[in-house]
Amino acid sequence: MKAKFILIGILFFSILTNAQNYKQDSVTLKQMSNRILADYDCYKDLNYLCKQIGNRISGSEQATKAVEWGKKTLESTGCTNVFLQEVFVPHWIRGKEEASITTKNGNRISLKISSLGNAVGTGENGLQAPVLKVNNMDELKRMNAKDVKGKIVFFNFKFDQLNINTFDSYGPCVYYRWASPSEASKLGAVGVIIRSVSSAFDDKPHTGSLHYDDKYPAIPAVAISNLAADDLEKMIEQKHIKNLFIKTTCKMLADVKSHNVVAEIKGSELPNEIIVFGGHLDSWDIGEGAHDDGAGVVQTIEVIRTFIKLGIRPKRTIRAVLFMNEENGLRGGTKYAELAEKNNEKHIVGIESDAGGATPFGFSMTMPMEQRNKIKSWSNLFLPYNIHDFDREGGGADISPLKKKFGTPVMELMPDSQRYFDMHHSDNDVFENVHRRELCLGAFGMSAMVYMISQYGL
Amino acid sequence: MKAKFILIGILFFSILTNAQNYKQDSVTLKQMSNRILADYDCYKDLNYLCKQIGNRISGSEQATKAVEWGKKTLESTGCTNVFLQEVFVPHWIRGKEEASITTKNGNRISLKISSLGNAVGTGENGLQAPVLKVNNMDELKRMNAKDVKGKIVFFNFKFDQLNINTFDSYGPCVYYRWASPSEASKLGAVGVIIRSVSSAFDDKPHTGSLHYDDKYPAIPAVAISNLAADDLEKMIEQKHIKNLFIKTTCKMLADVKSHNVVAEIKGSELPNEIIVFGGHLDSWDIGEGAHDDGAGVVQTIEVIRTFIKLGIRPKRTIRAVLFMNEENGLRGGTKYAELAEKNNEKHIVGIESDAGGATPFGFSMTMPMEQRNKIKSWSNLFLPYNIHDFDREGGGADISPLKKKFGTPVMELMPDSQRYFDMHHSDNDVFENVHRRELCLGAFGMSAMVYMISQYGL
Repeated sequence: MKAKFILIGILFFSILTNAQNYKQDSVTLKQMSNRILADYDCYKDLNYLCKQIGNRISGSEQATKAVEWGKKTLESTGCTNVFLQEVFVPHWIRGKEEASITTKNGNRISLKISSLGNAVGTGENGLQAPVLKVNNMDELKRMNAKDVKGKIVFFNFKFDQLNINTFDSYGPCVYYRWASPSEASKLGAVGVIIRSVSSAFDDKPHTGSLHYDDKYPAIPAVAISNLAADDLEKMIEQKHIKNLFIKTTCKMLADVKSHNVVAEIKGSELPNEIIVFGGHLDSWDIGEGAHDDGAGVVQTIEVIRTFIKLGIRPKRTIRAVLFMNEENGLRGGTKYAELAEKNNEKHIVGIESDAGGATPFGFSMTMPMEQRNKIKSWSNLFLPYNIHDFDREGGGADISPLKKKFGTPVMELMPDSQRYFDMHHSDNDVFENVHRRELCLGAFGMSAMVYMISQYGL
Repeated sequence: MKAKFILIGILFFSILTNAQNYKQDSVTLKQMSNRILADYDCYKDLNYLCKQIGNRISGSEQATKAVEWGKKTLESTGCTNVFLQEVFVPHWIRGKEEASITTKNGNRISLKISSLGNAVGTGENGLQAPVLKVNNMDELKRMNAKDVKGKIVFFNFKFDQLNINTFDSYGPCVYYRWASPSEASKLGAVGVIIRSVSSAFDDKPHTGSLHYDDKYPAIPAVAISNLAADDLEKMIEQKHIKNLFIKTTCKMLADVKSHNVVAEIKGSELPNEIIVFGGHLDSWDIGEGAHDDGAGVVQTIEVIRTFIKLGIRPKRTIRAVLFMNEENGLRGGTKYAELAEKNNEKHIVGIESDAGGATPFGFSMTMPMEQRNKIKSWSNLFLPYNIHDFDREGGGADISPLKKKFGTPVMELMPDSQRYFDMHHSDNDVFENVHRRELCLGAFGMSAMVYMISQYGL
């Protein structure tokens, strides 16, 4: 009988505590959201990063400036533990770009191109060859080498407009950006043109990393816009084209010393349990890297700033990382995981913001169901902020080495994806295309999730 | 015992039917979404409405063109029952606008203004008077008439940036746009300037309807942008201002004949149960009325087009209405309800899209809990489209007369509200600020909701 009373007592106490926690957490989250929306410091930071530093590909002078700025900005929040992690990064430069179509009746039509990241160039003399269109990889693989040899292969694989989450369309297209140069080279092609990995019907080409398979010659590879691809497709089908000319002088230089920028607030109760969160400081060398991943960078900084502004001392250690070289090497993320191993650190979760600065809808995650359910049990706290989706699989690139090495649970902020791939890796990705309130709500989402995990663990 | 088996049988049959319905409905919804995203006809319609017709205030030539276009476009979907409802609408014209600040040291600083809709003008000579700033209505009401008399009152009430749903900030600000001219006039003011009802920190003034109380003289009233209001606030606080000059020649002309545009698909089983849905065809006379409410208009048309493209014959009658004169009179919505009464029609629900063309989050609604719960029971069908919020109270202006007259349940599509009030009623509200995919998803949301109610009633 006594045991029963004790049990009821414990149950009652636990319900009471949970209710009190819920109320207190809901107040804390509202304070976070108020502070971030009222001050919108992350938006001001993004303005500086985009307009005063600009795009910042690994190895560039701007990337160095971005590291200095990141450190200074994190220090300006009042965080007393800001440091750099040295990492050597690839240094790819774009050089000159020029392309044109020569029609059968002798006209020359210029074509706006963007070399794929890490691609080899054609050299100053350029490359002239007939074009071969394939709509997908199967079509290429069914071909005889003699029909491909000496040609520029145009991969006309289209972004699927029917998916609701545009990341579902991104994946299949990225395969073409990543793998098509070597697949074409395998059959003797001399160059590759891809339809940009983009949801926009406009004239902007989108860059992004390719991968060369060492077994085949590395051949030049460029992207053209969706509108240009539509035109090219039509001209090829109407057999109007004599050949294509491409000149690119991009090349890979020697590795360059760079840094991850790290800022930490030690946990008051469980300092050895680390919650790491971040975005990547490098960007492509066109546009301003505003959504990709300026947004993630300034949101990461904003988490630290918000904890400090509100005087929140986390129970577990929270650590912000501005990763270097996500775009064309993942050296920063890899180095971070190596150091974590070396220092014998225990990461309880990795959280990334690298899907743009639009209104947050939820978090994708890769972790055991029990941990996902723990996060889902907080969903009522997030619902007032429209953060409602905790069901998708996902996680960021920079934190994937942690996942791989230690099986660390990973998550990624999931913003509305409708506009992202209009801008991603292109000249469209500029500060003006990020909305103040949307960016702030994403910063809130990151802050709130870091807070909840710092309080309750995973 | 037999009864038990029958009961279990019925239950089993009902579960089976529900599961089958769910599967079939989920397929139908996906077909709708695919069709709308693939063809994006609503986006092309919006382009025409914004760029070929432009803004279209009630009584204007463009409003007449919009009616013709709306009818033609609805007919072009293949709908065989398209008709007009005659309605007389107010005809307010803006005329010239000019304003300036004269400082104490004799400088003249020009001020960009927008007359509030339905306002009286100052006449050609303009109005010159000292300015009195109040931050809210209470401040004004505490004042003595002698301190207000002869002055232009500047209502410096600010848009609350802390609300997550910006419509929560809109309401309190609209009170100032609507009521401040007469409240100021009551104390002898000669004119009113309001801070624009806007979330944007920019230099664009936002217009919108005011209301004059017949008991007091109608005085001119204009809006200025948030940036201009910040400057004005500062100058007033620093006592730099001698007086303000405002010249507006806006005026109300005689009523003009116009129309609601209606398109209907008769129900196959319950034709007398009508589901009415719509947006408003008129807009303000600045910008292009792209989000407000071009988006709602083209989404409404898209519902009809989607039913016809997919060959869906609804069980209940679905009726699309492009309402006239939502912005400054609500005559279209009022006339629609009058005709519904005259024709003894049974409306089971009214659904409006008049909150912009951004990614849809849910539907707000005003109806008994039982009906709301019926809609919420469909939420799993909407979740794959991120339409997740069915909890807010709401409904559109055009369908409010139906609600008032018959108690009809009303709903409104609820898009992401972050960007809406940056554009609403201003020069920012142009086609370029509506996103193709977001607009299409809203059209899907409307189509899906109309479909579900047409199948299962409320």
